[in-house]
Amino acid sequence: MRATILHGPGDIRVETWADPSVERPTDAIVRVVAACVCGSDLWPYRGANPVHEPRTIGHEAIGVVEAVGAEVARVRVGDFVIVPFDHCCGRCVHCHAGQTQGCVELAMTASGQAELTRVTNADATCFVLDDAPGAEQHAAVLALSDVLPTGYHAAVSAGVAPGMTAVVVGDGAVGLCGVLSARRLGAERIIALSRNPARQRLATAFGSTDLVAGRGDDAVEAVRELTDGVGADAVLECVGTEESMLTAFRVARPGATVGFVGVPHGTQIPWPTAFRGNIGLRGGMAPVVRYLPDLVPAVLSGELDASAVFDLELPLDQAADAYRAMDERRAIKALLRP
Amino acid sequence: MRATILHGPGDIRVETWADPSVERPTDAIVRVVAACVCGSDLWPYRGANPVHEPRTIGHEAIGVVEAVGAEVARVRVGDFVIVPFDHCCGRCVHCHAGQTQGCVELAMTASGQAELTRVTNADATCFVLDDAPGAEQHAAVLALSDVLPTGYHAAVSAGVAPGMTAVVVGDGAVGLCGVLSARRLGAERIIALSRNPARQRLATAFGSTDLVAGRGDDAVEAVRELTDGVGADAVLECVGTEESMLTAFRVARPGATVGFVGVPHGTQIPWPTAFRGNIGLRGGMAPVVRYLPDLVPAVLSGELDASAVFDLELPLDQAADAYRAMDERRAIKALLRP
Repeated sequence: MRATILHGPGDIRVETWADPSVERPTDAIVRVVAACVCGSDLWPYRGANPVHEPRTIGHEAIGVVEAVGAEVARVRVGDFVIVPFDHCCGRCVHCHAGQTQGCVELAMTASGQAELTRVTNADATCFVLDDAPGAEQHAAVLALSDVLPTGYHAAVSAGVAPGMTAVVVGDGAVGLCGVLSARRLGAERIIALSRNPARQRLATAFGSTDLVAGRGDDAVEAVRELTDGVGADAVLECVGTEESMLTAFRVARPGATVGFVGVPHGTQIPWPTAFRGNIGLRGGMAPVVRYLPDLVPAVLSGELDASAVFDLELPLDQAADAYRAMDERRAIKALLRP
Repeated sequence: MRATILHGPGDIRVETWADPSVERPTDAIVRVVAACVCGSDLWPYRGANPVHEPRTIGHEAIGVVEAVGAEVARVRVGDFVIVPFDHCCGRCVHCHAGQTQGCVELAMTASGQAELTRVTNADATCFVLDDAPGAEQHAAVLALSDVLPTGYHAAVSAGVAPGMTAVVVGDGAVGLCGVLSARRLGAERIIALSRNPARQRLATAFGSTDLVAGRGDDAVEAVRELTDGVGADAVLECVGTEESMLTAFRVARPGATVGFVGVPHGTQIPWPTAFRGNIGLRGGMAPVVRYLPDLVPAVLSGELDASAVFDLELPLDQAADAYRAMDERRAIKALLRP
């Protein structure tokens, strides 16, 4: 198959690679119809995570089931499926508790940006659509494999509820999905931290009521002014850096929760703020499988549409251009078509 | 007045000191009937926090109101009061939301280990008892000024609910009060981490069902075994060190919350555990004023009794001995009588 291969920092190539195969009887192989690049793919691309040998990359995909193992009963060849980035068994105590990201057999999509990808525990993991979506729906449906449920997880983890004031730290695709999700959960006021005009426009289209262009102290001051000195009822931390986490805690009102979904890199908790403020922290990897039964119908009906986060679409062979565009922040999120 | 004065690391003396006075019309002065030493008092005593000049110390006290400012209306001279360590105004948006520890006028008891102490915003802060408790009740009532509501806050923050399995990290007075509180909140199983026989006995008396004597990896392994590999539904972190926080996250099952009340010192979050496990963190300074209407009646009726954490009682003049005994872990918590 053709697959996107990460060779080292900044070195992404689309090459011929061995097809994935059914390794365990619970696996399925999916022919990818649409994939995309995640902000977390940029970490190894930028050299923040080590790359020891060339490897496939990409964990967001939708497509058609090409093969299934002998024990796969629910998912069938020919089904159009959403592939959640975090695969789960559906049988363990954590899956039963809805903590699918804590599954004892947790695995990740490993070659999303390729022609084929393997899904472990396919019956529990794959979300089968009754009908294959039209090409015009691919972007909206693709968002369900990671970015939209992850933004939703930030909002749920932050405890967003009707009438609240929410702050969203991060104007990447996840942050923008956080805005959309906060609105879905009934936030009355959504303050988006962004200084990029295109992303500001998208944040507004997704439901943010206020925009704050400053960073650090300036952002904290601006949120305090917008909230009459009180702070936000809920904060969505959608970046994962030390600065973004600090800002998230500082804009929270006492008793609020920071819902975090950015993979932490060198992140610290500002303890005095957390301690006195009783500001909680909750989140992490999104339990995509748990959220899909709620989110898929809303997306298929058009009620929830994150497709605008994809502002660049390229054939798979140009994956390197997609990485460059996202690395240089020329694109919010790139969709790739094998 | 006679007061405990911290001169520097390890240098505690009881000396004559200026009486506190009504500085603002909302202040009250309380004649201390019983006070005690907190684990957090040991931080500056041990030199972990700098001491720039001699100062009073102690933030846990009960006593009789000696004087009130012109604007104090509810609290009267002669009232027997519990003095919550964190004073609050009762009027600000955070107090109205129950976040009394986030009060815009937050202040702390500054000379609890003395004959007299000043209480700011006395009307909102002081809990007035209808009748002065007998001497035999002083220890149980004194625990309401900090240690019991702090242990309770750990349990509430951890989300302890009926039927749950809770782990309590820390066998100091706060941790032991955490055990008592987890039982009150209905935990079915309470695993206390302790290797001190006297503290183990007290933990058992307070409601712990299992004791784990190991630390670090051993403790994590033991909790996993006790919970069939699942982990705890709720974890109370009652120490504040890096090791204790790490242990707390590692014994939590996916989706659980670590309720923390130890003042963090050099503490880090184990991000990979928190991220994949979706293990939340909540807690900090206890909103004592919020909890007292619930806890005081239970203590006065004898239903809730933390007095056994006081295993040393000394006259105020021997405060230095109290500090030494706690520093050397010969005493769990020392009660001082002016």
